[in-house]
Amino acid sequence: MSLVVALSGGVGGAKLALGLSRVLPAEELLVVCNTGDDFEHLGLSVSPDIDTVMYTLAGLANAELGWGRADESWAFMETLAAIGGETWFRLGDRDLAVHVERTRRLLAGEDLSAVTAEFCTRLGVLPRVVPMTDHRVRTRVRTEDGWIAFQDYFVRQQCRPVVRQIAFSGADEARPQPEFLAALRDEKLRAVVICPSNPFISVEPILALPGVRTALEACAAPVIAVSPIIAGRAIKGPTAKMMAELGLDVSAAGVAARYGDLLDGYVVDHADAASVPGAVAATTLMKTIEDRENLARVVLGLAYRLRGCQLRE
Amino acid sequence: MSLVVALSGGVGGAKLALGLSRVLPAEELLVVCNTGDDFEHLGLSVSPDIDTVMYTLAGLANAELGWGRADESWAFMETLAAIGGETWFRLGDRDLAVHVERTRRLLAGEDLSAVTAEFCTRLGVLPRVVPMTDHRVRTRVRTEDGWIAFQDYFVRQQCRPVVRQIAFSGADEARPQPEFLAALRDEKLRAVVICPSNPFISVEPILALPGVRTALEACAAPVIAVSPIIAGRAIKGPTAKMMAELGLDVSAAGVAARYGDLLDGYVVDHADAASVPGAVAATTLMKTIEDRENLARVVLGLAYRLRGCQLRE
Repeated sequence: MSLVVALSGGVGGAKLALGLSRVLPAEELLVVCNTGDDFEHLGLSVSPDIDTVMYTLAGLANAELGWGRADESWAFMETLAAIGGETWFRLGDRDLAVHVERTRRLLAGEDLSAVTAEFCTRLGVLPRVVPMTDHRVRTRVRTEDGWIAFQDYFVRQQCRPVVRQIAFSGADEARPQPEFLAALRDEKLRAVVICPSNPFISVEPILALPGVRTALEACAAPVIAVSPIIAGRAIKGPTAKMMAELGLDVSAAGVAARYGDLLDGYVVDHADAASVPGAVAATTLMKTIEDRENLARVVLGLAYRLRGCQLRE
Repeated sequence: MSLVVALSGGVGGAKLALGLSRVLPAEELLVVCNTGDDFEHLGLSVSPDIDTVMYTLAGLANAELGWGRADESWAFMETLAAIGGETWFRLGDRDLAVHVERTRRLLAGEDLSAVTAEFCTRLGVLPRVVPMTDHRVRTRVRTEDGWIAFQDYFVRQQCRPVVRQIAFSGADEARPQPEFLAALRDEKLRAVVICPSNPFISVEPILALPGVRTALEACAAPVIAVSPIIAGRAIKGPTAKMMAELGLDVSAAGVAARYGDLLDGYVVDHADAASVPGAVAATTLMKTIEDRENLARVVLGLAYRLRGCQLRE
């Protein structure tokens, strides 16, 4: 048996995770989700990236919205508005069950890994999905008006403020999720895939956990990223805007430079093939399920080749 | 301006409260709701009787279920079942917004009176609706297997256990809601109406609050109850079963005996007119909105007559 670890944020990461889940046996994939976006809202513990990955792998994701569940209803939200509650972060009726039950279980003393595993099992998700950590890490963004919580920036202010700096509060004291860390040290590890998620707010929270960078550098398997930037633009979300605001080159090459020596391999879109020497070109815009599977095959194929060259086993 | 105070539990009480609200100016009615049924479920603060009264007065109550909201949907509950959550206490998608927002506000330091007032205003409820207390009182039921929480008895076990004893945990230390107590001492008070709710679990928690019985006995206005028993049977709920189990006469007269000297007037159904000397007979089964208004008029008419006779002002 071999093992592939995928590091994922929300939508883009979840798409590639789904592709990987369809070309790998379920027991050979471990999806590690960013939890820096997690927050407490209306008294509920919300884990947006875990849920997006879980819903995507369960075939329940809302493709139009890019978050939450398909066939969602909004009676809760309508009523919340009617009684004067906060409505800037939208929670569908079905999605809400996950937040309410997760909150209840966390308060009862279960950890986020156990809760996530239970929900995934119940929803028919076969690969293992784990949070990056069971400890509290919160992404914060420094804007011209000072530091604000990530969801305030991301949802309430719809990424409008200029980002000066990003921090992962609590990361220094957090421990990486045990299965995640064990997988990085597992001799069966065949690849670590950095999904095409936002480097700053989806991947770097994971890299900020103590020991993760070291483990990635030390691990026998190649670390391969897929660029979230195609021809200078992000598929979704504020990646390009953030790169520009942080003074980085808004390009697939800029993303590779950000990850630096961590990468053993890099997959870019055909549009960027010429501008990133050494990268493997593929169709990275994942519109269909076949796109997801094909990209997963390209990434795994690159991993095989890199292992063959490195002869690190 | 005059003032009428109605003490109410859930369905039956809410129906008469609605009748009263339609024959009195809004500012002349204060509805005091039992909170002994309140409980914490899935981490949420649920106040069943307040909500039934609020929804009923707002025209939003679910007449078929006898609790919750009309036009309710159950996507949350379906999903909760799918992910392995507890489903014995059903919470509709719209209803849930009230519990989530109430819980948030209570945790933020607001009291139940303020939260209830805000929700009622938002939902267009004109009369004042207040909890019997802002403090924590929890009805507990002693069965053959020992003491259990009220909702465990009432919903989870569907009133099947034989009731040996009832207690109102926390009542001794609770203070009656300030407006409620002030109303009982108000010289403009014209009537206190004990709605046709379950005496043991809906009305007696209110009477158990320190100072309430004394204030009711001392108040200038007549205290008038409407029997929740018609021809030896309860309209809804476990009133008759409980009376039998507690060794009481299952009849309108039995209810009057239970309230004892507290009552200045008593309204029974025509079916029970002969068996309760001195009671006023009326149609107490409130099927239509007219039934509710008519019963409200009977009660208020009795209050006028009693005041005329008593000349207590």
